[in-house]
Amino acid sequence: MFESAEIGHAIDKASYDAELPALREALLQAQYRLKEQARLSVLILINGIEGAGKGETIKLLNEWMDPRLIRVDHFDVPSDEELAHPPAWRYWRRLPEKGRTGIFFGNWYSKMLEDRVHGRIGKSDLALAIDRAQRLEQMLCKEGVLIFKLWFHLSKDRMLARLDSLKDDPLHSWRISPLDWQQSKTYDKFVRYGELILRRSSRDFAPWYVIEGSDERYRSLTAGRLLLEGLNAALDGVDQPPAQPHVAPAELNIDRLSLLGSLDLEQRLGKTEYQRQLVEEQARLSRLLRDRRLRKRGVLALFEGHDAAGKGGAIRRVTAALDPRLYRTVQVAAPTEDELAQPWLWRFWRNVPGRGQFAIFDRSWYGRVLVERVEGFCTPEQWLRAYTEINDFEEQLVEAGVVVVKFWLSIDKQTQLERFKERENTPHKRFKITEEDWRNREKWDEYGNAVADMVDRTSTEIAPWTLVEANDKRFARVKVLRTLNEALEAAIAK
Amino acid sequence: MFESAEIGHAIDKASYDAELPALREALLQAQYRLKEQARLSVLILINGIEGAGKGETIKLLNEWMDPRLIRVDHFDVPSDEELAHPPAWRYWRRLPEKGRTGIFFGNWYSKMLEDRVHGRIGKSDLALAIDRAQRLEQMLCKEGVLIFKLWFHLSKDRMLARLDSLKDDPLHSWRISPLDWQQSKTYDKFVRYGELILRRSSRDFAPWYVIEGSDERYRSLTAGRLLLEGLNAALDGVDQPPAQPHVAPAELNIDRLSLLGSLDLEQRLGKTEYQRQLVEEQARLSRLLRDRRLRKRGVLALFEGHDAAGKGGAIRRVTAALDPRLYRTVQVAAPTEDELAQPWLWRFWRNVPGRGQFAIFDRSWYGRVLVERVEGFCTPEQWLRAYTEINDFEEQLVEAGVVVVKFWLSIDKQTQLERFKERENTPHKRFKITEEDWRNREKWDEYGNAVADMVDRTSTEIAPWTLVEANDKRFARVKVLRTLNEALEAAIAK
Repeated sequence: MFESAEIGHAIDKASYDAELPALREALLQAQYRLKEQARLSVLILINGIEGAGKGETIKLLNEWMDPRLIRVDHFDVPSDEELAHPPAWRYWRRLPEKGRTGIFFGNWYSKMLEDRVHGRIGKSDLALAIDRAQRLEQMLCKEGVLIFKLWFHLSKDRMLARLDSLKDDPLHSWRISPLDWQQSKTYDKFVRYGELILRRSSRDFAPWYVIEGSDERYRSLTAGRLLLEGLNAALDGVDQPPAQPHVAPAELNIDRLSLLGSLDLEQRLGKTEYQRQLVEEQARLSRLLRDRRLRKRGVLALFEGHDAAGKGGAIRRVTAALDPRLYRTVQVAAPTEDELAQPWLWRFWRNVPGRGQFAIFDRSWYGRVLVERVEGFCTPEQWLRAYTEINDFEEQLVEAGVVVVKFWLSIDKQTQLERFKERENTPHKRFKITEEDWRNREKWDEYGNAVADMVDRTSTEIAPWTLVEANDKRFARVKVLRTLNEALEAAIAK
Repeated sequence: MFESAEIGHAIDKASYDAELPALREALLQAQYRLKEQARLSVLILINGIEGAGKGETIKLLNEWMDPRLIRVDHFDVPSDEELAHPPAWRYWRRLPEKGRTGIFFGNWYSKMLEDRVHGRIGKSDLALAIDRAQRLEQMLCKEGVLIFKLWFHLSKDRMLARLDSLKDDPLHSWRISPLDWQQSKTYDKFVRYGELILRRSSRDFAPWYVIEGSDERYRSLTAGRLLLEGLNAALDGVDQPPAQPHVAPAELNIDRLSLLGSLDLEQRLGKTEYQRQLVEEQARLSRLLRDRRLRKRGVLALFEGHDAAGKGGAIRRVTAALDPRLYRTVQVAAPTEDELAQPWLWRFWRNVPGRGQFAIFDRSWYGRVLVERVEGFCTPEQWLRAYTEINDFEEQLVEAGVVVVKFWLSIDKQTQLERFKERENTPHKRFKITEEDWRNREKWDEYGNAVADMVDRTSTEIAPWTLVEANDKRFARVKVLRTLNEALEAAIAK
């Protein structure tokens, strides 16, 4: 894998000087096209051998291109906010927005590689980390992030010679890295595991480029050209037809409606019984959330449901007995301009609960496979892959210790009609009902199909859906609280 | 101060039920007007006695109004990212954007009050904290943040009775607060210092409202009405003429040009001498930045200057010998939509360096009193008060341990012309020169006045300006590096 990056590539000054001005101008033009199209963002991952010119190349790119459109981030020791969230959170919060370029100096690859070299993780954990990185990158690519993965390389002899020459140079003594590169064994391990990572993670949507780093001119020109050609190809590619997604499954299954249809919506709870059970469950929740074993974890409850199914009321019954400092309600509405300039999951990553936090989502990422699917706000390809992206996302939450509880509040069409009318007749409830709600209602069956698909594809062992029969608000509220409590108890017992 | 909030205010259920629907409708309407005007944001500070209904009122507001436009934040134990920044940073990062409402449950007042009650700060520190809060609030108000400060009150007897009744109620046991409210002494201290804080911080632009909290209906209606009336008054106030600012000083001083004119721009450095001194200063900087005594502090260097004065080149000489992970360059361009929806300093607060970080600003908040002033992008009232706001801002940085170094790179008009032409004739430099640069050039003298004012008003002992004679790039670059190094050495020696 590194063979051709150990042969001493070099380029003479005259050739370099002759090519550079045109390269710089072309890079600038590509950068402005990127900005103007505002359709793609660029993410450059910088990895490789110590002393091979990683930092120098980053500086050079900033010099050659318009630095106002570039942001460099590094990821050394994570902050406690970062440690309190799933590992990918720190990368998500630094993603470049459309039209811009982000350089990650240190990233998921350097993390897994250093962990492996230092023996902090074993073979199978490395394999899992590589897989996870591929899923992340694939999603980012589909969402318009153009990823360049650059590995700067040096043969062992060249590296040792270089480190030696830099040792006493005060201008370069910053190159002392946490890995002890002076040791020949470190290099061997780094290259062996690096090779493994590159091999497994070089994919059509985001291949690795290995650049020999011993000659500054060769290395700089190569990096610049790579970037230029990749960028221009992507910018020209605007009119390519999107890959044909697998045929949408909803229309194939004539029995679809049965999932929601199978619910016994007539389940009710009398007023006295409701009051008793409600207070009991609220007290139980309040107790559970103060349990020390839960403080090390996060809790995420999300609510989806038919319009007017009573999401807001159910959420208020959940929070009624809680200190407002104990939870945060996230109201999901149409994405803002900033959010639209990012991969679609970005706005949810922003609101992921940290350790010890309880986040309640009033609507959620499932809008992607519900309203966005039904209303055609995204393409079939987009919502079809969203199922996988969502499962990956929730898996990361659960692995970081978050308890994920998901509710679908279901009512029938007649009940919805009655509630719509009641809202229209109550002044302070009128804001809850819009033309859009009436329009959505006309697509009742399509939403039913989408819900069935959603539950089939995203109700997982680690984050199951709970369907809540909600024709009777009292029944629904108690069922929500009880389900949440049971999930928390199960989590504590583990 | 609390007299009329200890007399047992109450309202009967019939009156409450009669008023509520109209109040809720009006609040919703005001909220939508707020959203539509997108001219103001609302910030509600919630403080007061334990058990007086603070949390309940927050929940109620979320129920009465459209919760999608409200965000509740609390500020308990700061994260390490927050601890690594000036104290106000954590509030700035949570400010509501225009059109929206933020509720700060726990805020700068609860912080100072608890610190005082627990004896963590003394009398004069409390006075300073109050002053600082006033300056912050005044700025926020001027920037379109409508602040409501609500103090929920209970007499001591009522509080003790209330806590007693809640003690065994599992639904309310979360009310146990870090302050031990059961102790009569705690209440006395809390009320005594609270009274002091309210007295000193109740100002025309953001007065306190004290609400007796023993009766839920009274307290809720009062808070709702307060909010409604304040909000409507502010929303109606759009056409009020702005307060007349103090007359702009620039035009009064016929000698203004002398500041920049007094610089000896002909200072030069030969090539050999330049190379020697440059490397020496770069090595010194690299050494200083790795000094352990500096790791507990932040460093902020900002660069302003005439167009084509060589800011970019000077910055690159500063970073040349540094690991890219050691610094971050912040390129200040026109504000984004998100940034425009916030007080003008918000986008700089976002980029303040934390402990151990080095941030380099290529242009900065001084744009407010330079380009924005000269081009009329802000009103005289706005840029006049900006001097004070900037000095306050920098004082907070310095108090948090940040070393602030500010450079103005000065060239003469002829040198600028030559550099403009050279840029136009070099393809990869062409992006650096725009029509705007030529237009700015026509206002050379006005910019000169603005610079002189800026230096006079913001060159402070804690954050002085360094004027850099930049006709000769070599001279300028070495002076920048040397000045920075001296500032760092002085900081370390302290």
